[in-house]
Amino acid sequence: MRNIKLFLQFDGAAFHGFQQQPNGDTVEAQLKKALSRLLGEACTVYGCSRTDAGVHANEFCCNFKTQSDRDCDKLLQGLNAVLPPQISVLSCAQAPESFHARYDCRAKEYAYCIWNGRTRNPFLLQRALFHPFPLDVAFLNEQAQDFVGTHDFSAFCASGASTKTSVRTIERCSVVRTGELVTFTVCGNGFLYHMVRIMVGTLLDLQRGKLPPGSIPSILRSADRTRAGVTAPAEGLYLNRVFYDEGSLSDGSEG
Amino acid sequence: MRNIKLFLQFDGAAFHGFQQQPNGDTVEAQLKKALSRLLGEACTVYGCSRTDAGVHANEFCCNFKTQSDRDCDKLLQGLNAVLPPQISVLSCAQAPESFHARYDCRAKEYAYCIWNGRTRNPFLLQRALFHPFPLDVAFLNEQAQDFVGTHDFSAFCASGASTKTSVRTIERCSVVRTGELVTFTVCGNGFLYHMVRIMVGTLLDLQRGKLPPGSIPSILRSADRTRAGVTAPAEGLYLNRVFYDEGSLSDGSEG
Repeated sequence: MRNIKLFLQFDGAAFHGFQQQPNGDTVEAQLKKALSRLLGEACTVYGCSRTDAGVHANEFCCNFKTQSDRDCDKLLQGLNAVLPPQISVLSCAQAPESFHARYDCRAKEYAYCIWNGRTRNPFLLQRALFHPFPLDVAFLNEQAQDFVGTHDFSAFCASGASTKTSVRTIERCSVVRTGELVTFTVCGNGFLYHMVRIMVGTLLDLQRGKLPPGSIPSILRSADRTRAGVTAPAEGLYLNRVFYDEGSLSDGSEG
Repeated sequence: MRNIKLFLQFDGAAFHGFQQQPNGDTVEAQLKKALSRLLGEACTVYGCSRTDAGVHANEFCCNFKTQSDRDCDKLLQGLNAVLPPQISVLSCAQAPESFHARYDCRAKEYAYCIWNGRTRNPFLLQRALFHPFPLDVAFLNEQAQDFVGTHDFSAFCASGASTKTSVRTIERCSVVRTGELVTFTVCGNGFLYHMVRIMVGTLLDLQRGKLPPGSIPSILRSADRTRAGVTAPAEGLYLNRVFYDEGSLSDGSEG
């Protein structure tokens, strides 16, 4: 059996997340349908992450095993021809037999986009949170540095999650403005259910004074979900990059 | 009667162009519906341009007359609340009684976006032409300079147009690459039916060798539509800026 690794990009607005489910269209369901059509096999697909309904991906990794000896470049072209246009296969390559898109993922980078204009941007519908109130990016960036490090992120995790531990390490994060677009970027070794969206909601609560400046360390220590901010909408969230020991798509070692 | 000037931004994918028509939803129809709801009056709306179905606008100007003394800022907020989210009102201001969005428009700038990646960009569906073949931007930019000046653009006009003269002046144009996004920008005092889209189709034909380098001057002189290239799809076209003697939105004299 060959083990094939794909990097995908998708507009999440059309899907109920990556992972297949009984109700609603998903990226995984579309991918399995396309693979079955191209290869005549039912393939099991392993995704690097589940992603919520409406969440986008600039880079998403998954793998599947196949009996087929189809050339990877032909497979990439075939998949892009039969997949819906909201999903693009960026690269397709054979991986070591043991490669697993989820277990081998060393780190993930998420971006959360906020349109901070006075009026809605029609080109960012379902692609960014529209927030027409003042955002002090220097203040937000400073507050966000309290996420960096190894912490118990229970306070930043929606109920219903089923992970063994809620300790995660955030390597870096930043809040940057480009014109009216404000982007929160965060990179870490793993993320709990809704974690990035609660981080963003907490930053917005800090901005509007609902939480006092410097609250993040005590919210983390409390491990109490009710102490953190609201869950920001899915539409602004992008899985931006995924990192593996054998290289990522973005560093040019793939594709 | 007050004369009110609006600057709009809209995602054209949802509309059959600006101008109202019996079949299909249009930006003008939505605007008239919103004005009637807010002001309780049937307003006539004068747009700076018709725009084809699927064409976008980063800046579009229109005006209407009203009996209402509604504050312009309140009107802007009201319009943005009732218009579909694919249309955004960027500014709303009182104009001189004689102002006419079409007749007073001194120049227009269009941008045509081409996604020149190897694979489709899911975030640019209906927002750019997907063209996965090599584009030499320096060559295209050089060829495009032949459009600059005052010419009879009959060869770059679709049949069915009803204008008195087909002479137009192009002030400047350029072809620029930003990563995998290639943008053709053109500014002139007026544009014929499908003119920008035929200009782009001609540049693509020059790139693929279907037309010899340096053909544009002779195509212009021929005044023969069959000598120019194909009409590029509407989805990549944006009305980018509109210029008036009393200032434009982009130069900060409005909004």
